[in-house]
Amino acid sequence: MYFKQFFNEQLAQMSYIIGCQKTGEAIIIDPLRDLTPYIEAAEKEGLSIQYVTETHIHADFASGIREAVDYLGAKAYVSGHGGADWSYQAIEAIRVTEGDVIQIGNIKLQVVHTPGHTPESISFILYDNGMTEPMGMFTGDFIFVGDVGRPDLLEEAAGVKDSTQIGAKQMFESIQNTSELPDHMQIWPGHGAGSACGKALGAVPMTTLGYERKTNWAFQISDENSFIKALTSEQPEPPLYFAQMKVINRDGDVLYKDDTVYPLLKGKQVIDLRPKEIFAEQQSEGINIPFNKQFLSFIGWYVDYEKDMHLIGDYQTVQNAKEALKLIGFNNVAGYTTPRKIKGNAYEQISPRAFKSMKRSEINILDVRTNKEWEEGHFEEAKHVHFGKLNIEKIPFEKDKTIYVHCQSGVRSAIAMSVLKLQGFKKIINIKGGYSQIKE
Amino acid sequence: MYFKQFFNEQLAQMSYIIGCQKTGEAIIIDPLRDLTPYIEAAEKEGLSIQYVTETHIHADFASGIREAVDYLGAKAYVSGHGGADWSYQAIEAIRVTEGDVIQIGNIKLQVVHTPGHTPESISFILYDNGMTEPMGMFTGDFIFVGDVGRPDLLEEAAGVKDSTQIGAKQMFESIQNTSELPDHMQIWPGHGAGSACGKALGAVPMTTLGYERKTNWAFQISDENSFIKALTSEQPEPPLYFAQMKVINRDGDVLYKDDTVYPLLKGKQVIDLRPKEIFAEQQSEGINIPFNKQFLSFIGWYVDYEKDMHLIGDYQTVQNAKEALKLIGFNNVAGYTTPRKIKGNAYEQISPRAFKSMKRSEINILDVRTNKEWEEGHFEEAKHVHFGKLNIEKIPFEKDKTIYVHCQSGVRSAIAMSVLKLQGFKKIINIKGGYSQIKE
Amino acid sequence: MYFKQFFNEQLAQMSYIIGCQKTGEAIIIDPLRDLTPYIEAAEKEGLSIQYVTETHIHADFASGIREAVDYLGAKAYVSGHGGADWSYQAIEAIRVTEGDVIQIGNIKLQVVHTPGHTPESISFILYDNGMTEPMGMFTGDFIFVGDVGRPDLLEEAAGVKDSTQIGAKQMFESIQNTSELPDHMQIWPGHGAGSACGKALGAVPMTTLGYERKTNWAFQISDENSFIKALTSEQPEPPLYFAQMKVINRDGDVLYKDDTVYPLLKGKQVIDLRPKEIFAEQQSEGINIPFNKQFLSFIGWYVDYEKDMHLIGDYQTVQNAKEALKLIGFNNVAGYTTPRKIKGNAYEQISPRAFKSMKRSEINILDVRTNKEWEEGHFEEAKHVHFGKLNIEKIPFEKDKTIYVHCQSGVRSAIAMSVLKLQGFKKIINIKGGYSQIKE
Amino acid sequence: MYFKQFFNEQLAQMSYIIGCQKTGEAIIIDPLRDLTPYIEAAEKEGLSIQYVTETHIHADFASGIREAVDYLGAKAYVSGHGGADWSYQAIEAIRVTEGDVIQIGNIKLQVVHTPGHTPESISFILYDNGMTEPMGMFTGDFIFVGDVGRPDLLEEAAGVKDSTQIGAKQMFESIQNTSELPDHMQIWPGHGAGSACGKALGAVPMTTLGYERKTNWAFQISDENSFIKALTSEQPEPPLYFAQMKVINRDGDVLYKDDTVYPLLKGKQVIDLRPKEIFAEQQSEGINIPFNKQFLSFIGWYVDYEKDMHLIGDYQTVQNAKEALKLIGFNNVAGYTTPRKIKGNAYEQISPRAFKSMKRSEINILDVRTNKEWEEGHFEEAKHVHFGKLNIEKIPFEKDKTIYVHCQSGVRSAIAMSVLKLQGFKKIINIKGGYSQIKE
Repeated sequence: MYFKQFFNEQLAQMSYIIGCQKTGEAIIIDPLRDLTPYIEAAEKEGLSIQYVTETHIHADFASGIREAVDYLGAKAYVSGHGGADWSYQAIEAIRVTEGDVIQIGNIKLQVVHTPGHTPESISFILYDNGMTEPMGMFTGDFIFVGDVGRPDLLEEAAGVKDSTQIGAKQMFESIQNTSELPDHMQIWPGHGAGSACGKALGAVPMTTLGYERKTNWAFQISDENSFIKALTSEQPEPPLYFAQMKVINRDGDVLYKDDTVYPLLKGKQVIDLRPKEIFAEQQSEGINIPFNKQFLSFIGWYVDYEKDMHLIGDYQTVQNAKEALKLIGFNNVAGYTTPRKIKGNAYEQISPRAFKSMKRSEINILDVRTNKEWEEGHFEEAKHVHFGKLNIEKIPFEKDKTIYVHCQSGVRSAIAMSVLKLQGFKKIINIKGGYSQIKE
Repeated sequence: MYFKQFFNEQLAQMSYIIGCQKTGEAIIIDPLRDLTPYIEAAEKEGLSIQYVTETHIHADFASGIREAVDYLGAKAYVSGHGGADWSYQAIEAIRVTEGDVIQIGNIKLQVVHTPGHTPESISFILYDNGMTEPMGMFTGDFIFVGDVGRPDLLEEAAGVKDSTQIGAKQMFESIQNTSELPDHMQIWPGHGAGSACGKALGAVPMTTLGYERKTNWAFQISDENSFIKALTSEQPEPPLYFAQMKVINRDGDVLYKDDTVYPLLKGKQVIDLRPKEIFAEQQSEGINIPFNKQFLSFIGWYVDYEKDMHLIGDYQTVQNAKEALKLIGFNNVAGYTTPRKIKGNAYEQISPRAFKSMKRSEINILDVRTNKEWEEGHFEEAKHVHFGKLNIEKIPFEKDKTIYVHCQSGVRSAIAMSVLKLQGFKKIINIKGGYSQIKE
Repeated sequence: MYFKQFFNEQLAQMSYIIGCQKTGEAIIIDPLRDLTPYIEAAEKEGLSIQYVTETHIHADFASGIREAVDYLGAKAYVSGHGGADWSYQAIEAIRVTEGDVIQIGNIKLQVVHTPGHTPESISFILYDNGMTEPMGMFTGDFIFVGDVGRPDLLEEAAGVKDSTQIGAKQMFESIQNTSELPDHMQIWPGHGAGSACGKALGAVPMTTLGYERKTNWAFQISDENSFIKALTSEQPEPPLYFAQMKVINRDGDVLYKDDTVYPLLKGKQVIDLRPKEIFAEQQSEGINIPFNKQFLSFIGWYVDYEKDMHLIGDYQTVQNAKEALKLIGFNNVAGYTTPRKIKGNAYEQISPRAFKSMKRSEINILDVRTNKEWEEGHFEEAKHVHFGKLNIEKIPFEKDKTIYVHCQSGVRSAIAMSVLKLQGFKKIINIKGGYSQIKE
Repeated sequence: MYFKQFFNEQLAQMSYIIGCQKTGEAIIIDPLRDLTPYIEAAEKEGLSIQYVTETHIHADFASGIREAVDYLGAKAYVSGHGGADWSYQAIEAIRVTEGDVIQIGNIKLQVVHTPGHTPESISFILYDNGMTEPMGMFTGDFIFVGDVGRPDLLEEAAGVKDSTQIGAKQMFESIQNTSELPDHMQIWPGHGAGSACGKALGAVPMTTLGYERKTNWAFQISDENSFIKALTSEQPEPPLYFAQMKVINRDGDVLYKDDTVYPLLKGKQVIDLRPKEIFAEQQSEGINIPFNKQFLSFIGWYVDYEKDMHLIGDYQTVQNAKEALKLIGFNNVAGYTTPRKIKGNAYEQISPRAFKSMKRSEINILDVRTNKEWEEGHFEEAKHVHFGKLNIEKIPFEKDKTIYVHCQSGVRSAIAMSVLKLQGFKKIINIKGGYSQIKE
């Protein structure tokens, strides 16, 4: 199991990614709108974010759950508790309630209804790898380190009458309901020190149920009324924007827009940005145009402005390539795939020496250099198609024939290999080093 | 005069900013779509990009001229030569022709029609500071270092019949027409080594007219036909996307979208991100909420989701603040102003000691701390309004009265100073150090 | 309490910083040699790294404990267990053994001897804020998530005969000895997935004692011999460099050298890099030369090449200033202090208007502009000393007199304010805005 | 020819790199101590910095000429003019005087003695590619844009009596001596706006001789005495540190120390950081340990703490690898080579399928997996040596035999290929994909 906590300092907010290395699946919990940190963490571990959930309708920040659905294609799980007023709108999501289980590969998240902070609040108990022993619980704004969530935000910020008292009572019950859970469970809260969502939050990123039972003030008061009184007194005034957040997070809002390309299978023309040596070993379903100084001048031959584009490359290279493409007015990079997911075979290559030993008159040779290079010297037996025009001129060989491809030094023939493969040529062989190595 | 050349490696393209320090005006020439580098350079020099121009309708990259107009509010100048086919569409711009002058503070750019590469191509001769001697010429794709622009792109890439021959002839004439210009003029070209817009481009970023006269092949051929023949032979094939570019750049296209906030006066709520000590010395027309760890919790009281926001701060701080605001679902940062442009006065402050020596019963004191702080102890003579509610609760003093403002330690009273000033209070005095320093 | 875990991917290693916000003290545990991440974390929280410790003599990386002592002036605590072979050399450190307590403000770390991985291995039980309940335990290479440390490294990598068997037996006992500790204790291990120090390490960053009791294989075997057999079988071969590490970490080695300036009180000339507005509000014992474009031309008047320099500024500004100083051959930046620690008073200032209303003939005025500015116009009543020569020319006033200082626009008089204060002038008043604002 | 100007804002200083692409040689002119920007520019262009020079002994910054000699192995050229007082000490450099030529591939720099600013000041006239026409002149502090160097620094800052008058006279002569040079020459000065080395410096980065003749005040005065008077009046006071600079730059000083690895052939153990697919195509004389998450655990088998190390990789990867090595206490990375310079051949590989079709009993198979992997299953016909022990255990085959090497998945056999080659094995063949692909 992979586990990572993210702390946002501006919001004193914690979000999480957990993943199953065996199946490559991951879930993000209580994500912010900017998904980049989660994507980068997942990519480093070879995981895909396939699920997203959150503990409640947040009041202090704009949730990233809709972005995860839209930009990553993630399956969303949201609370089904809390009634009509607390019902998520405008999101395709599975409603989960007490006892439901979210499965992420070999990991299980079991839903517990823990109202108090808000009526629909849920927590998730984590079971790793088929174990019956729970490892920990994502508590959102239920249990914090040294505190519990405040029940008064609705009344204070959203003007929901009497909700503070009701919430405080529910919070008392939610705490009592944890009594069966083992001391050793880790508690992974939704906020740390500095948040306005609780009044005594510690600056320790996580805790355990047993430790909170011994030290958290909220676990020390067994009388309901005393608890309610303690919980509802002296909470700091919530900033005015909290009211707005509930609406945004419950009802949906314009999505977070930035300039990221997301790891989602989208885009009809596929360009593979990896170095030619690596593409040669592991072909993909893309045209291989490595991202380097010549990227634009090479892709300029193949880019189709009418179609969305899908890139193959690591996160940072993909973002750079997208920026470069904008320089030539192409704005439609729609998604990308990380190199780790590419499992293709090597393509066939031949050394200059081996090629030289062959009888050229008996084989098919395709020269993909420029007209000028061709005119300055070429093999009599070869046919010529400019590497940039392989998709618009007729290839002078049958698709089932063996064809030897060369350029001048080996860069453009690598592009040609990928283009011809996509056209359905079955048996194409790259001549390493190109014309400069093989001419007599 | 300020002068800076920008080289884009992917395109082997050069663009320029020049500015007049006396008036603070600047122009960008042949800009790419991503305006960030120009904005950063201008900001460093205390300049505003108020003008934009370009030498011709580019074929090899998407021009940033429309972005400069839309995002920076720049006044645009484009070529009025070339006829209907070469007429810019969908852009509010001044058409300039041979002999026209663009004035940037004390700097003059005189337009010269230099067709050849394209029919509408113009160059700009720069005169600094009222001098009659030209300093140099922005030549676009007319003269390069060691080469001249190619005339065949239209025919090759856009299929315009016979345009290669016509262009070559025009290029010959354009070159002849430079004969009156002095040797010492600098030549600032539109491309360097690596571009497909010329065939023998050097990797030297600029040159002089005199040097090109002596060394550039195109200046050595005095016979028109020989020149045409030389120029039209052996040009490399232009990538297919060139055809697309002409249309994008002539007719307009979707604008470049990224996540930048631009230095344009836009946005109805103004937030000043500078440290409180600096705001105290130079007030602006904004609410002073410094960008630090507490930014969101403070601005959360003042942000109005219905209005666009204008920020005051340096480029990087502004971009970070915009990201932070997105975390709470606010997406409407519309523009910003750099601190350099703020010329306000200091606000009045008083030291804790001086305040202590005053008779509190005779003055107006406004305590802007939280309810809890107020309840734990305050001056009997003071009135209380939570710092976050200054715009929604009634201020218990007349606007023309002298008011002493304090919080606990001096951070929030600085916010209050700016809020009250915007409400029209005339005589507000900040008590430095706050209640912690002045209570007995 | 502040708590942060650091994960180094190359080593799959975890180190920690914990700190007491009340007293501002912090300790780092099992630090790597590059101290930058710890310094940055501490600075963000307003903490000073005053202590350093480690769980054992590491075999897989070079410890940063000596760097913390030398570069941060931290007090070091090392294991006193293990006998002569396991005795730290060449380090000034306190030897701690079973039961000893390290105090960091209100936080206690209690030492437990937990041999097995190595003979001297210790763990630290953390008690927060005077509580009797332990919060967790730093276990180094004793308990991992899902595994325990391997006992065979000494024999494998360092060739210590029979040490594997002895270590395995000790490990068994160390595990048994945890039986009294509560389930709820967090376990903060020294390694995560990917390290060669254990064989089944999970990719979860922390765990609890109770969870390990239920799920960690090592806690399931109650028979000593079976445990030893299980622990000593099938460990991966340790890389050869492990042998080297023991020597480096036990006996000392050349210190990690990089280009960082450390937050240590060192350096006889003190330069304060903060903006003049902030210095004006909180003076320090330094000369105020803000870090901006004019930094070198201003500090060039004051830098003494024979003395070490101490800077005041935040981490990043300090590193940049040090680089700038190297450009003029000054290599002796010895330490720095963060702005947070500066608690000085404001200096006195007067507005241009108030100054204009004074009788100039009755006051002392010091003009610190350049000779040229002075010659172009000055107050008759003023005396002149170039701002850069305040330390080498005689100041024409007594130290106990009130002196009004001005320059042209207010930048250099701020420098002068700090220089004169350091010389012992008691009553100096800055005229805001300078000569440009006050001349008639 | 490649040409790049560098502007340092703190010093308003310009330095230059020029290079000959044909031969790959480059020179840096008036470099600062931090060589990184020059190295990065050179590497991008495929150039090596093999020469260094400067126009004079600088007074305003610490020259990087000694760093270029020591860290890059560059050949240095310094002024031989100016007499004993102006003679460089403690540097191995060729003294050049009027008329001498520095050759950088096809580029010539011709030395001109241009005293005035200082007695030894020289300028360099650049001739590109065998041309007789000069392209431009590096003028240092002789001619600036709109100004000339100040002659009074020696007297002001270093107290050299009468040197101002002498210098002013020399400056007059140096200007007169340019009269034969053509208008079209570019002028590449040593300073721009903001420097204390001249009084009217423009913010334009370069100019031409003809333009200065027309517009620079210093070229307008033909009377020597008037010129001297104009030049020596109203120069700003030079900061005190200027005195120190002359000594540092003339006599040598401690070298600039930072944490950079320089592109110099140094270090006895060679490690090649490139991806295995690229190494497979272009072998070097290093052990191939790609820089990724497993770098330390793999190099930990091969690092020799007693020897300096030479890395093969691009600038950034090399710096990162050096940092990683410090984590394990290895501080001796001495130099590096960029991948561009590696011209080795591909090594031989075989596909899993082809291998499976061979008769294993008739070939030599070397399995380099761990002991555990070996024990869990291997080919009966194979011999086993752990991949990390190839240099310390005996390889069970003759060096002239054909050997097929495999690991589990192909990563470690790539390391083995490089190690065995270095041992002198002549015919080693990598089995792609490893045991996981070829076992039945």
